[in-house]
Amino acid sequence: MAVVKQNITRADPAVIARLAGAGASTTHEAQGRTGYLGPLLRPIYPGTRIAGSAVTISAPPGDNWMLHVAIEQVKDGDILVLAPTSACDDGYFGDLLATSAKARGCRGLVIAAGCRDVRELTEMGFPVWSMAISSQGTVKETLGSVNVPIVCGRALVNPGDVIVADDDGVTVVPAARAAEVAGKADARTANEENKRALLAAGKLGLDIYDMRGRLEAGGLRYE
Amino acid sequence: MAVVKQNITRADPAVIARLAGAGASTTHEAQGRTGYLGPLLRPIYPGTRIAGSAVTISAPPGDNWMLHVAIEQVKDGDILVLAPTSACDDGYFGDLLATSAKARGCRGLVIAAGCRDVRELTEMGFPVWSMAISSQGTVKETLGSVNVPIVCGRALVNPGDVIVADDDGVTVVPAARAAEVAGKADARTANEENKRALLAAGKLGLDIYDMRGRLEAGGLRYE
Amino acid sequence: MAVVKQNITRADPAVIARLAGAGASTTHEAQGRTGYLGPLLRPIYPGTRIAGSAVTISAPPGDNWMLHVAIEQVKDGDILVLAPTSACDDGYFGDLLATSAKARGCRGLVIAAGCRDVRELTEMGFPVWSMAISSQGTVKETLGSVNVPIVCGRALVNPGDVIVADDDGVTVVPAARAAEVAGKADARTANEENKRALLAAGKLGLDIYDMRGRLEAGGLRYE
Amino acid sequence: MAVVKQNITRADPAVIARLAGAGASTTHEAQGRTGYLGPLLRPIYPGTRIAGSAVTISAPPGDNWMLHVAIEQVKDGDILVLAPTSACDDGYFGDLLATSAKARGCRGLVIAAGCRDVRELTEMGFPVWSMAISSQGTVKETLGSVNVPIVCGRALVNPGDVIVADDDGVTVVPAARAAEVAGKADARTANEENKRALLAAGKLGLDIYDMRGRLEAGGLRYE
Amino acid sequence: MAVVKQNITRADPAVIARLAGAGASTTHEAQGRTGYLGPLLRPIYPGTRIAGSAVTISAPPGDNWMLHVAIEQVKDGDILVLAPTSACDDGYFGDLLATSAKARGCRGLVIAAGCRDVRELTEMGFPVWSMAISSQGTVKETLGSVNVPIVCGRALVNPGDVIVADDDGVTVVPAARAAEVAGKADARTANEENKRALLAAGKLGLDIYDMRGRLEAGGLRYE
Amino acid sequence: MAVVKQNITRADPAVIARLAGAGASTTHEAQGRTGYLGPLLRPIYPGTRIAGSAVTISAPPGDNWMLHVAIEQVKDGDILVLAPTSACDDGYFGDLLATSAKARGCRGLVIAAGCRDVRELTEMGFPVWSMAISSQGTVKETLGSVNVPIVCGRALVNPGDVIVADDDGVTVVPAARAAEVAGKADARTANEENKRALLAAGKLGLDIYDMRGRLEAGGLRYE
Repeated sequence: MAVVKQNITRADPAVIARLAGAGASTTHEAQGRTGYLGPLLRPIYPGTRIAGSAVTISAPPGDNWMLHVAIEQVKDGDILVLAPTSACDDGYFGDLLATSAKARGCRGLVIAAGCRDVRELTEMGFPVWSMAISSQGTVKETLGSVNVPIVCGRALVNPGDVIVADDDGVTVVPAARAAEVAGKADARTANEENKRALLAAGKLGLDIYDMRGRLEAGGLRYE
Repeated sequence: MAVVKQNITRADPAVIARLAGAGASTTHEAQGRTGYLGPLLRPIYPGTRIAGSAVTISAPPGDNWMLHVAIEQVKDGDILVLAPTSACDDGYFGDLLATSAKARGCRGLVIAAGCRDVRELTEMGFPVWSMAISSQGTVKETLGSVNVPIVCGRALVNPGDVIVADDDGVTVVPAARAAEVAGKADARTANEENKRALLAAGKLGLDIYDMRGRLEAGGLRYE
Repeated sequence: MAVVKQNITRADPAVIARLAGAGASTTHEAQGRTGYLGPLLRPIYPGTRIAGSAVTISAPPGDNWMLHVAIEQVKDGDILVLAPTSACDDGYFGDLLATSAKARGCRGLVIAAGCRDVRELTEMGFPVWSMAISSQGTVKETLGSVNVPIVCGRALVNPGDVIVADDDGVTVVPAARAAEVAGKADARTANEENKRALLAAGKLGLDIYDMRGRLEAGGLRYE
Repeated sequence: MAVVKQNITRADPAVIARLAGAGASTTHEAQGRTGYLGPLLRPIYPGTRIAGSAVTISAPPGDNWMLHVAIEQVKDGDILVLAPTSACDDGYFGDLLATSAKARGCRGLVIAAGCRDVRELTEMGFPVWSMAISSQGTVKETLGSVNVPIVCGRALVNPGDVIVADDDGVTVVPAARAAEVAGKADARTANEENKRALLAAGKLGLDIYDMRGRLEAGGLRYE
Repeated sequence: MAVVKQNITRADPAVIARLAGAGASTTHEAQGRTGYLGPLLRPIYPGTRIAGSAVTISAPPGDNWMLHVAIEQVKDGDILVLAPTSACDDGYFGDLLATSAKARGCRGLVIAAGCRDVRELTEMGFPVWSMAISSQGTVKETLGSVNVPIVCGRALVNPGDVIVADDDGVTVVPAARAAEVAGKADARTANEENKRALLAAGKLGLDIYDMRGRLEAGGLRYE
Repeated sequence: MAVVKQNITRADPAVIARLAGAGASTTHEAQGRTGYLGPLLRPIYPGTRIAGSAVTISAPPGDNWMLHVAIEQVKDGDILVLAPTSACDDGYFGDLLATSAKARGCRGLVIAAGCRDVRELTEMGFPVWSMAISSQGTVKETLGSVNVPIVCGRALVNPGDVIVADDDGVTVVPAARAAEVAGKADARTANEENKRALLAAGKLGLDIYDMRGRLEAGGLRYE
């Protein structure tokens, strides 16, 4: 049951870069409002917007052994994504693991548990999205798996999926859909420019989106 | 049941400005320790202290249609206040709606749900107090109401009430009590100046507030 | 039952300073992974790393009277530690109390409840680790105790224990163990320097810590 | 600020009885999907369905003094409704208070905090809807108010409003709307009888409610 | 995106019956400690132990339209499994839907949201595992999907997977693994009989499982 | 650090029996409103009221090995009390461990984590107070300690302390104070008999406890 899949299929780096530009919210919308990992996964410091390929980890509560195993599987541009097998807020990850991951080209960590050494991680510029910040240490006693499908927060993450993370949280895009979603995200962004200008000029969404008829039909009453 | 009240009674702008100066905690105290919306409503970025008149929104879970309707009702200096009809942490509000609201003179948003595009909102300087930050998108399918009484967090907010919001959270003051509360807040602030100087000089609250006798009468034992 | 213990045993200031340098996570590890107060106690602003001797407070929900009593017991370099007798997120502590505490040499507050005036506390540079930020005011009606053992978050804190707090949260060290733990923390920090250099050079934890044999023995399968 | 309103307007007992028959969910629907206090208010034992007029209590955290004051205001058929001024899970209410309340004709308690002595309350048949069950005792030191508007869970409750409570939770109906809502609830119940028979016979809601066209128009695709 | 898959692959009814006999915990263990949906999904009444094939539903927050669509897809012995697209505790399901589902042969509902009419559901003997009990009603405005993969609580559920539910909660078994897991569950149950007899006779697990050597090797010290 | 203390001091069985009669709430009050473990520890089935001597367990998250070690330390009339070293809701304990514990004279389990096999435990009549019910299994890989002081919920529990548990939750009494507390509990119960009779006859607490003067002095205003 404890397994490390060494070959995973990643999306095109150019596509990943476009998704990084779009960010978590636009990517989520472009994908038909799916793939968001939920609001409990928060960045440990603000201002980062990244995308990368998921190297996934399924680990027991309170045991960070598999992080060491996973780092060997990281290729340049990857993002580690860890889900504990049951709810746990321990600090699985700190500055030493970040040093190691960074040296291997890892762009960041998404963890449905806790991390620590946040001051040092901030100074290093190694971004983490976690459910908790916690000094509580972990052991290295029980195996887990690397590069298997995991449920992380509210979404399924397969190894090689594109992770898009910023101040709004984390969105996952299946590798096979990445190009399509990037295209839709770019279109969405382009489309919003015009709307933003109209709205900034004081024009109402009610008119831009032509909502008044539908509101009236629905029975909205003005008093 | 879906209704938009177009005429609401706002407090005097000068009074609102004084409450903005007092901030959420002093206003709450001045009002007899009432009106605080609770600690789950947090600013998406620190350092803002505002007050304004509430334009209230009652919206279904996962549906932000009424925000568009509400923005038309905003007058310069207003604050949008949204409560979902049941618990929801979706991202109802982002940078496009903020652009629109800002263009109409809106000072900020208080939402007992989620918002997104926090990087862009921070860059725009459009403050939001929310219960979550979430990329999760919403639909525009079900009507709600604008400018009706709502329960937002732990408090009742009526349209036109004064909202006072800062890093401590959000306090609501009924429009009709705004002048009285501003007066008490100013008095409280003036009164604290003297105390602060005494405390800074090392004098104890036990002595400034003359507490020793009451503590002894209550049975406090020093060992 | 309401008692103030006036004489408590503190650890050596030089030892406390070493623990401040180690921080909450390293101290927790050095102490055998014990003493962490849990991830719900968060700093109100980032970037502080302190240690000091605990002056403990057991207070009723919604009543901050004992904070005034406790401040008289503070000696230079102490940290106030408050646990409510039942769960409460009210704002027990604000800028006036901070002014008083600071004037007495207090280095900060750890409170398993709420605090307020966070803008002012940030400007003053008075650090607080709390479970909530809340404007909600408290009364001064019911006695509690000062310098008694308290359960604060997930740990027991005795008066005089060393409190180590930073961006990772708060760890407590029994006064009698402080020197031993500081020694282990220093050793741990020294030991990590070498590892950090190896990891930064791209060497894997799997090899540095010689984990491959144990992983294989445990049944980890590479595919 | 601490006040007891002695005269409140109650709804017609016959109407209240009809709402008791409808229960919390049907009443909530009949009222336009409003008035539900939320899923955190749970019965301490199953199987009760009651309605009565609200005698409201606003009480400080950890202080049950006002319950004694409120019981004097209870008339036959009333239900006590308590909201603490901030979040609190203490056990405000136990078998002695229940004995007193019952002797005055009180039908039950709704409390957005905790209660205790649940075995005794169960044996007495005194129903309570609470947010917690807790042995933690309270004091009698700080005043609150009786028969003022309160926010209890997710809804506003005014004194004299009709409280409808059963295994689904608690719904509040403004006294002035009680007759109208009871009428709608009865109509709803009658209307459901026919539907229930059709559904029990295996007919689909899709057909009974004629949903297929709207689903298709919305774009639902069958594969 | 809104789709109904009409053909799904179910496991062998005889295998499903064996898993029902094993229950949620034994099935979870037999499957290598995977598939548990987590402790937040609780039965609305105790004492039921069922298994069936999942008919899955992805529905928006506060919208139960897809339940009607899903019931048409139910075959005898199926279990409905609903996950909202974002967190929601509304009461999606009540006695009318249960009447309909039951008439189609549905064995129960698993819902990562709320249900209502629990008294009636209990009387009908229609079991539900939910995250909340709530009167709060839902609308029928926004489409979702039926028989697509969903994340429900902490696990992925594919249409046709075997759902095993009892007082311990809910475990999901992929249809393709059902026979294998049933075999392991039966073996586990058989194996436990002997152990139970030894333990009931006062023999210690330390000896039955031969743990003493490993404990000593790990450094456990008896004082 | 992993240690088993084999000799602990228990309270007098006759005193323990009196505390069992008093129950968790009365014992908590008799002890000066201390020792309650908090409302998150709930019985898995209603109707039990027990007391016994604590055999304490400190265990890692997701690891129940120490339960086997602890059961050897159980003497007739003891209660197992387990606190995980960090938050965990896994099912540490099921029917096999209960069979073993019961055979050794154990009266029940208090666990600040999860348990499973609740149907079987209910049938056996083995009571458990837990924070969760969960099928999620645990491993036996990492040592912990038995009969050391632990923080369990909101209270400190030392080995040999008296645990009093019923439908209201769990209260701990230090062994050395057990006789004193039992005396106070008995006095409290006796004293309540008279009050209960007066209250049942319709006399008000306001009069029995002579509260009217103090309420008036505090400023309570009747309207």
